[in-house]
Amino acid sequence: MENFVYHNPVKLVFGKGSIAQLANLIPPQARVLMTCGGGSIRKNGVYDQVKAALARHSVAEFGGIEPNPRYETLMRAVQLCREQPADFLLSVGGGSVLDGTKFIALAIGYSKGDPWEILSRRAPVAEAIPLGCVLTLPATGSEMNSFAVISRESTHEKLALENPLVYPRFSILDPETTFTLPDRQTANGVADAFAHVMEQYMTFPADAPLQDRQAEALLATLVQEGPKALRHPRDYAVRANLMWAATQALNGIIACGVPQDWTTHGIGHELTALYGLDHAQTLVALMPAVWKHQKAAKQAKLIQYGERIWGIRQGADLAGQAIDQTEKFFRSLGMKTRLSEYGIGADRFAEIADRFAGRGFRLGEHQSIGPREIVEILQLAL
Amino acid sequence: MENFVYHNPVKLVFGKGSIAQLANLIPPQARVLMTCGGGSIRKNGVYDQVKAALARHSVAEFGGIEPNPRYETLMRAVQLCREQPADFLLSVGGGSVLDGTKFIALAIGYSKGDPWEILSRRAPVAEAIPLGCVLTLPATGSEMNSFAVISRESTHEKLALENPLVYPRFSILDPETTFTLPDRQTANGVADAFAHVMEQYMTFPADAPLQDRQAEALLATLVQEGPKALRHPRDYAVRANLMWAATQALNGIIACGVPQDWTTHGIGHELTALYGLDHAQTLVALMPAVWKHQKAAKQAKLIQYGERIWGIRQGADLAGQAIDQTEKFFRSLGMKTRLSEYGIGADRFAEIADRFAGRGFRLGEHQSIGPREIVEILQLAL
Repeated sequence: MENFVYHNPVKLVFGKGSIAQLANLIPPQARVLMTCGGGSIRKNGVYDQVKAALARHSVAEFGGIEPNPRYETLMRAVQLCREQPADFLLSVGGGSVLDGTKFIALAIGYSKGDPWEILSRRAPVAEAIPLGCVLTLPATGSEMNSFAVISRESTHEKLALENPLVYPRFSILDPETTFTLPDRQTANGVADAFAHVMEQYMTFPADAPLQDRQAEALLATLVQEGPKALRHPRDYAVRANLMWAATQALNGIIACGVPQDWTTHGIGHELTALYGLDHAQTLVALMPAVWKHQKAAKQAKLIQYGERIWGIRQGADLAGQAIDQTEKFFRSLGMKTRLSEYGIGADRFAEIADRFAGRGFRLGEHQSIGPREIVEILQLAL
Repeated sequence: MENFVYHNPVKLVFGKGSIAQLANLIPPQARVLMTCGGGSIRKNGVYDQVKAALARHSVAEFGGIEPNPRYETLMRAVQLCREQPADFLLSVGGGSVLDGTKFIALAIGYSKGDPWEILSRRAPVAEAIPLGCVLTLPATGSEMNSFAVISRESTHEKLALENPLVYPRFSILDPETTFTLPDRQTANGVADAFAHVMEQYMTFPADAPLQDRQAEALLATLVQEGPKALRHPRDYAVRANLMWAATQALNGIIACGVPQDWTTHGIGHELTALYGLDHAQTLVALMPAVWKHQKAAKQAKLIQYGERIWGIRQGADLAGQAIDQTEKFFRSLGMKTRLSEYGIGADRFAEIADRFAGRGFRLGEHQSIGPREIVEILQLAL
């Protein structure tokens, strides 16, 4: 096991009715800026619950944060906060609203230049407005981590940031808020959480049996509960299990002391930036392709995963069977697993590779994925 | 799943050589009181590493905190701190030293009466001296929780406290510090962590598949690595896996949203208080007895545990087989599993039951264990 530091100070408030606790979680004198997305929270009752809970607080609102939250949109919120200061940011929505809110929290006080530098050159930030969230979509894990991924419309870029200052002070997770999610978002959420686990698990054996089994606990739960949520969207236990699994899929605990991959996410962000695919759609199309490309290097873990999650114990090519079974699982969620199904061909693959060449770093647990390998993986995902 | 709040702010610094990071974890101006036990840290090099790391800090010392740390001993440290104030308490040792340090941290500022009231009547405490730890024995999980268990010599009592103020600010876990543990302490640690998991797992199905599998991940790791540590005490990977498992066995995460038992611990504390048995020795003798007594109520989970951890799938009495296998596992660690092996008979069982009757609460996930049932369980443990 490699040395590690684990420190996750997020306070999770989990369960039905828990939005009512908001008033005790935000300082009474705080000027709150509530951030949200496209309006679904006004239809499913979440907006009303939040407003009722914060009846005695001063609350301004900033809506319209889109999926794959855009720098251009977020900078309008930054401008708003610079004119009308806020002491606390409250994200109400899914991971995109929360990621956007994390960027806003860091950007408000960033005066050394364009806040995009926080992403593009990892410019250090010394302070952030404190933030909390009411989560309505289990998927990204942003509610219990210090990451955010932001897109820039003007340059078709999608980049990640990490900063301990943006751990939410609290995250309220009420599974009932997810009862009315469209199937596509439910499936995307399951696939996103599944992919997060895999980026931290599907590498090589590192003599870390606990981390392996904890990752497999998450995978088994997603495999069992994901399809149930599509059949029974108002089943509280199922929604609760998915919400809890998605949070723990990227709260850092299964990454402690083990190698990580992140090739699928790295390439996937480019597909979202260039083609507008949902984040999870890119992951589902790319992950099996990454595994096929890296089958020799990932052989031992593919076989372990196939046996422990899918019961694959006999026949030729155990690793290949595990990959096939994973693709079948995604299809059982109603998802497409090939880029060609989205009308995407090979014409811009070289452009994607060039972007990575320009950034000068390689992907994968062995740093073995460079521009050439990225094109090969994209070809396998067609 | 039941509603829950999870908030664990401990910063874990894990890995070989990590004691050297102490100087960055404690404020430079802090007057540090270092607490420790009976002297093993002077033999295994940990004391020297700590002193070297804190060469520029002001450090006083308080040694002699015993296993099952005693109120009488700890009050001497409280007195010392009232005369020579400390700003930071650093526990160097196992869970007993750390539990004792947590009590000291709370007791120093408790002026409303005898600090024993913090345990005996759960008297509220508003502030505590901040504390951190260098852990040398994986077992209690105290390094990542807000619990402590303290014994009082004069009354033969052993009681627990919980207070978020005593979450360690940091815990340094260097597996190399455990290379020289005596076999008895290694085995005790494995059994203690195993029992912690079981108190949160071996209840009834609560439609919480993730918590179940996370608990089973810990159990499988302890079953696999525990015996290895006895055979290969200087195997870093094995020691690291055990240390990481013991920490997560009682950091609250597997208890989220599910029922808990704690009967074994409740009765076990009395056996330690009355007979002086090691904490883990009491757990190993009592847990199979609790399960036998509650076999009908725990049937479903016993069968699930037997299948997933021990591969028990056929034959009569699957639950009974799981109990037998658990006892065999403890014996494979070199531990006794019956009270009679320690020369304990039934003569003081009524006294133990009377103590619980006096406290007025019942044990178990159904609160179904009262004084009469406690005697029945003790009989089964003979």
